[in-house]
Amino acid sequence: MDVITTVKEMKAAVKAVKSRGETICLVPTMGYLHKGHTDLMRMGRNLADHLFISIFVNPTQFAPNEDLAKYPRDFERDRALCVEAGVECIFHPSPEEMYPAGYATYVNVEGITETLCGRSRPTHFRGVTTVVAKLFNICEPDVSVFGEKDYQQLAVIRRMVRDLDMGVRIVAHPTVREDDGLAMSSRNAYLGADQRTSALVLSRALAHAADLVLKGERDASKLRKAASEMIASTPGAIIDYVEIVHPDTLQFVDFIDGSAVMALAVKFGTTRLIDNTVLRTIG
Amino acid sequence: MDVITTVKEMKAAVKAVKSRGETICLVPTMGYLHKGHTDLMRMGRNLADHLFISIFVNPTQFAPNEDLAKYPRDFERDRALCVEAGVECIFHPSPEEMYPAGYATYVNVEGITETLCGRSRPTHFRGVTTVVAKLFNICEPDVSVFGEKDYQQLAVIRRMVRDLDMGVRIVAHPTVREDDGLAMSSRNAYLGADQRTSALVLSRALAHAADLVLKGERDASKLRKAASEMIASTPGAIIDYVEIVHPDTLQFVDFIDGSAVMALAVKFGTTRLIDNTVLRTIG
Repeated sequence: MDVITTVKEMKAAVKAVKSRGETICLVPTMGYLHKGHTDLMRMGRNLADHLFISIFVNPTQFAPNEDLAKYPRDFERDRALCVEAGVECIFHPSPEEMYPAGYATYVNVEGITETLCGRSRPTHFRGVTTVVAKLFNICEPDVSVFGEKDYQQLAVIRRMVRDLDMGVRIVAHPTVREDDGLAMSSRNAYLGADQRTSALVLSRALAHAADLVLKGERDASKLRKAASEMIASTPGAIIDYVEIVHPDTLQFVDFIDGSAVMALAVKFGTTRLIDNTVLRTIG
Repeated sequence: MDVITTVKEMKAAVKAVKSRGETICLVPTMGYLHKGHTDLMRMGRNLADHLFISIFVNPTQFAPNEDLAKYPRDFERDRALCVEAGVECIFHPSPEEMYPAGYATYVNVEGITETLCGRSRPTHFRGVTTVVAKLFNICEPDVSVFGEKDYQQLAVIRRMVRDLDMGVRIVAHPTVREDDGLAMSSRNAYLGADQRTSALVLSRALAHAADLVLKGERDASKLRKAASEMIASTPGAIIDYVEIVHPDTLQFVDFIDGSAVMALAVKFGTTRLIDNTVLRTIG
């Protein structure tokens, strides 16, 4: 398995693959890999001739008050997991390699980045779309896999790819959960034991809302209230948002008609977790 | 010569070329072609195996108060000029094809887009970089030619390509001028006979400044004053800006050291013309 740290070498590796008419799947990550990532990689391995992943803690998607410096990193462990998952090449650039002095260009998706997580993290998605556009230009993937856990990110990237006519197919992987239901996230490492227990309320609240929909509830405000009350009554849980949105446009919906997405963000101490589920009127 | 109007067909044409390992040069235009464009095309023909051009009057680079609706168009004449210039394929999409309902993604270069033309046209370059990013993703050119007449546009596109790691080489073509020195522009068609005569002051003022530099003048404010006075004393000429900037960063310079660019924008009636020249301390 290769580890490549410069854009130039990565482009050369990509060119070699493309000149043989072979295809690339890219799984972009910020490292500190867990089963959520390795499941994405296993899926990606079957979607193209070559599986590349990127490991880059992208500074432009963190606000100054966020956890960039303390974001968990363990490259040697990540490397071992990649070998196991059949990754052929890790692109692992430095921040200076990706954003050299004088850097000035940003890709921005309007509208759907201003709701949900975009409200409390107003520059976050601009950083995500910018780095993903760069990674796509560098790695020229035919297909790229993103987790549904970051539902808004997935919708924003799909929108960018469609709008800018990028030649990459975006494939979604269902949220990978711990046995007890907690959505896997590198940020779970921040949780103390009590917070870890409290955080189970997220998946439970989502499951409860989905169940109410199957039982006939269609009123989004009642569903939000039911989920919010469960969360608010849990020790240490501070709600950022609990919303129900259209699956593509992410616009708030008043009634569930067919399918909608319940998305939430909740803080436990300084750790902000997100989760979501599709609410379907037919099971 | 092919005329292609949909993104899908254009991508298929590009894929066919790429699968043979052949290269593409793209010359993006807004049509109403003149010798400035056809000179770019002739240059482009020698830079790659295939010469594609785009003809698209891009709505996102016009502000609501600008000349989108009346921008000159003559596709049949353009088509004939393209055949003559050895173009193999014209990409000629509709605005709806490029910006379908729900379109939301923009590429923005910060800093160098906020000076010169960006000051009086604050959304212009965002439209340019967005459409050029789209055209590059659709046509996958190995090389693309831009005219130096739109100096800031050239600098902005170079910055975008470098920042987003796009795999295209940007080649500049020197400004093509009428015999009397007027820089060629589709917007020259708007000029009345008197305005056409007055507009000659632009190239003359630039030549005068360049001459003063060769004679030893280094003070940017004196050079700007000399050029501005020539223009201001010309009937019907209303100065938007006359500036001297660093060739890459477009930051204002106080003294000419090596080389700098004098750039200007001047209105004649409702027609806004731009021109520029490099000021060099050594001829």
